[in-house]
Amino acid sequence: MRATIDADRLRERFDAFNEIGATERGGVDRPSLSPENREARDRLVEWFEAADLAVTVDEMGNLFGRRPGSDDSLAPVLLGSHVDSQYNGGRYDGVLGVLGALEVVEALNDAGTGTERPVEVVAWSNEEGVRFQPDMLGSGVFAGVFDVEYAHGREDKEGNRFGDELERIGYAGTAPCEPRDLHCYLELHVEQGPYLDEGDLSIGVVEGVYGFSWANVAFEGQADHAGPTPMHLRHDALVATSDVVQSVRRIAGTGGADLVGTVGSIDAHPNSINVIPERVEFTLDFRSYDDGVVEAAVDRARREVEWAAEREDVEWEFEEIMRIDAAPFADECIEAVERAARSVVGEDDYTRIVSGAGHDASYLNEICPTGMIFVPSVGGISHVEEEYTEWEDVVRGVEVLLGAVLEKADE
Amino acid sequence: MRATIDADRLRERFDAFNEIGATERGGVDRPSLSPENREARDRLVEWFEAADLAVTVDEMGNLFGRRPGSDDSLAPVLLGSHVDSQYNGGRYDGVLGVLGALEVVEALNDAGTGTERPVEVVAWSNEEGVRFQPDMLGSGVFAGVFDVEYAHGREDKEGNRFGDELERIGYAGTAPCEPRDLHCYLELHVEQGPYLDEGDLSIGVVEGVYGFSWANVAFEGQADHAGPTPMHLRHDALVATSDVVQSVRRIAGTGGADLVGTVGSIDAHPNSINVIPERVEFTLDFRSYDDGVVEAAVDRARREVEWAAEREDVEWEFEEIMRIDAAPFADECIEAVERAARSVVGEDDYTRIVSGAGHDASYLNEICPTGMIFVPSVGGISHVEEEYTEWEDVVRGVEVLLGAVLEKADE
Repeated sequence: MRATIDADRLRERFDAFNEIGATERGGVDRPSLSPENREARDRLVEWFEAADLAVTVDEMGNLFGRRPGSDDSLAPVLLGSHVDSQYNGGRYDGVLGVLGALEVVEALNDAGTGTERPVEVVAWSNEEGVRFQPDMLGSGVFAGVFDVEYAHGREDKEGNRFGDELERIGYAGTAPCEPRDLHCYLELHVEQGPYLDEGDLSIGVVEGVYGFSWANVAFEGQADHAGPTPMHLRHDALVATSDVVQSVRRIAGTGGADLVGTVGSIDAHPNSINVIPERVEFTLDFRSYDDGVVEAAVDRARREVEWAAEREDVEWEFEEIMRIDAAPFADECIEAVERAARSVVGEDDYTRIVSGAGHDASYLNEICPTGMIFVPSVGGISHVEEEYTEWEDVVRGVEVLLGAVLEKADE
Repeated sequence: MRATIDADRLRERFDAFNEIGATERGGVDRPSLSPENREARDRLVEWFEAADLAVTVDEMGNLFGRRPGSDDSLAPVLLGSHVDSQYNGGRYDGVLGVLGALEVVEALNDAGTGTERPVEVVAWSNEEGVRFQPDMLGSGVFAGVFDVEYAHGREDKEGNRFGDELERIGYAGTAPCEPRDLHCYLELHVEQGPYLDEGDLSIGVVEGVYGFSWANVAFEGQADHAGPTPMHLRHDALVATSDVVQSVRRIAGTGGADLVGTVGSIDAHPNSINVIPERVEFTLDFRSYDDGVVEAAVDRARREVEWAAEREDVEWEFEEIMRIDAAPFADECIEAVERAARSVVGEDDYTRIVSGAGHDASYLNEICPTGMIFVPSVGGISHVEEEYTEWEDVVRGVEVLLGAVLEKADE
């Protein structure tokens, strides 16, 4: 009997899982290490155990479920994603890759299909980076990019430490979180961009992930009463900021064909209707598949910050807090995913694609051959409650994942 | 014996008063109806009673202390200001006008100087408008601009009602808050602008107050992932906002010689480094002594909001929440203040001036002849902890107030 996925079981679990932290507008609110994130983890452990997976939690709270191989000493095939969400995020982001991986194992179990290599399912901690920065923290430590102490010391806006919060929700495991020998890593994810949906395609065979840069910028001017302070005496941190927001648009418009640039977060002080803004803090996000393009964009943005500060005669701060190089995936994984895609949806319903969003796969790619499968995001929309993927595309995505696992796990 | 103010007593009270809610950087944090605002009120009541003033609290929490006139049936001379502060505001704003008025009464008491008319000292509620909008709420109700029910129903960001908070701090008085017969209103205040300091002058004889407009503006676009969303598919509420921030500068630069324009407050949602801003709410503040200039600026700003929304293909909202006409003061009060100024500091150390900031005096001007005295703000700085006025200028300001009161209270 050939292993096939059970779409009804997958649907049932998908719906049940997304009742945890469900929001009124149809999304989920399960930020990293929240009570809802704990509940989601508890549910996974339950399902992992029901599928006869050996459960391990490492010191970053990354959650593994292992199905032995016929030669259990071989390096395993690892598949998964994450279950933490944005604040009021979508139901598909991350969840699909974890529940899809679990369904692949269930399909192997149902068919009594053994594999040469062990197959492991993983749910990485803190992928989103909305509560604790940086994002992809669990996979980053696993790949040796950050050390555990650094990660445990990350604080949310209330000053709660990641390590303490992990302890509080009961997922501070003892297994070491460090690179180990893996045959490959495979991740199914929603595209979060418009290309598959616009092209009416079911599957994206991901060739790699954009590199990106994150920076924190601040201007500090002079708070003063908005009435009696004449324009020529002002040092307005928000005016300087608006200069830079405009610059980011210009940089993205001319800096490279695939370059995108965003100011996503802004906080002004004292933030009062009749006081000139004294200090404004904001963020920059630049992404491209070409690391040189990102580099040039960041350089140009830094100069724009200096110029804006000079025009308004305010102080400036510019700190790049994260730079990730573009991650081209291993040909062997891209090709295995492509073969599976061709077999599931035929020649005309998939495309090769590059990911604009960062993923845990970006870090895994640094320690083992890595591949990703995308399914469409309707309207290209993600990180919001309206995030949506047609159910038949979800099923196709999991089938492609199964196909790729069947190939890789017997190598 | 001619009444003269006691600079030492004034200083002692000024310092003691500003220990209430004192901040580390030398300012005060006593926002409207806060515990610190209550403590400040308690202190005033104590000092009013010690000065033999008959204390009344009205239904807006406005606090009056009355010194009878020799003909107590005559309309009183009212003098005062406010003791609520900005969040982390300065020590002089408002406080000077209230403690200065009290010192005037003490000086009359010390000298045994009777006046024909009663003299009343007042501390108005909620002048700043940082916790409850609109600002100048206590004097606004007193002048008949707002009704009491409207004012009591105003809510802070946590949804606390003004009326309930007034009750909670024990200052929901029973005296009706409504226009009554006043001979005149006089207010001593820091300039909050740079002109007296730049001109090295001690006293400003205020001819009137700028008119102004406040508006709440919002853009609503589409939240989406900052990585995989190409630039041409974005509907970024912050980009539209930055357009308008720049426009406000252009409008202020060309709309009229004395026109000022400010975006003081901005809030973005979801405010995440890797999500395109979906909704941004911000404020507009335009001021001029020419009401037509304010009108034109608001019209132009509304069009700029529309254009910015069209460029970015986002929804827009524009609500003007407050429009106050310029308030030219009565000649008889301007002249009385000017005579007192000339007598205290001589011909060369004062100037006539217009106020860019709104004051309780703006509302009082609608129901009785009104005058104001300014003392310099060093560096033109106010609404911040660094707000500073040389002590000798404070003393001169109170002496001018006393001189004007002596003239007006015997008319």
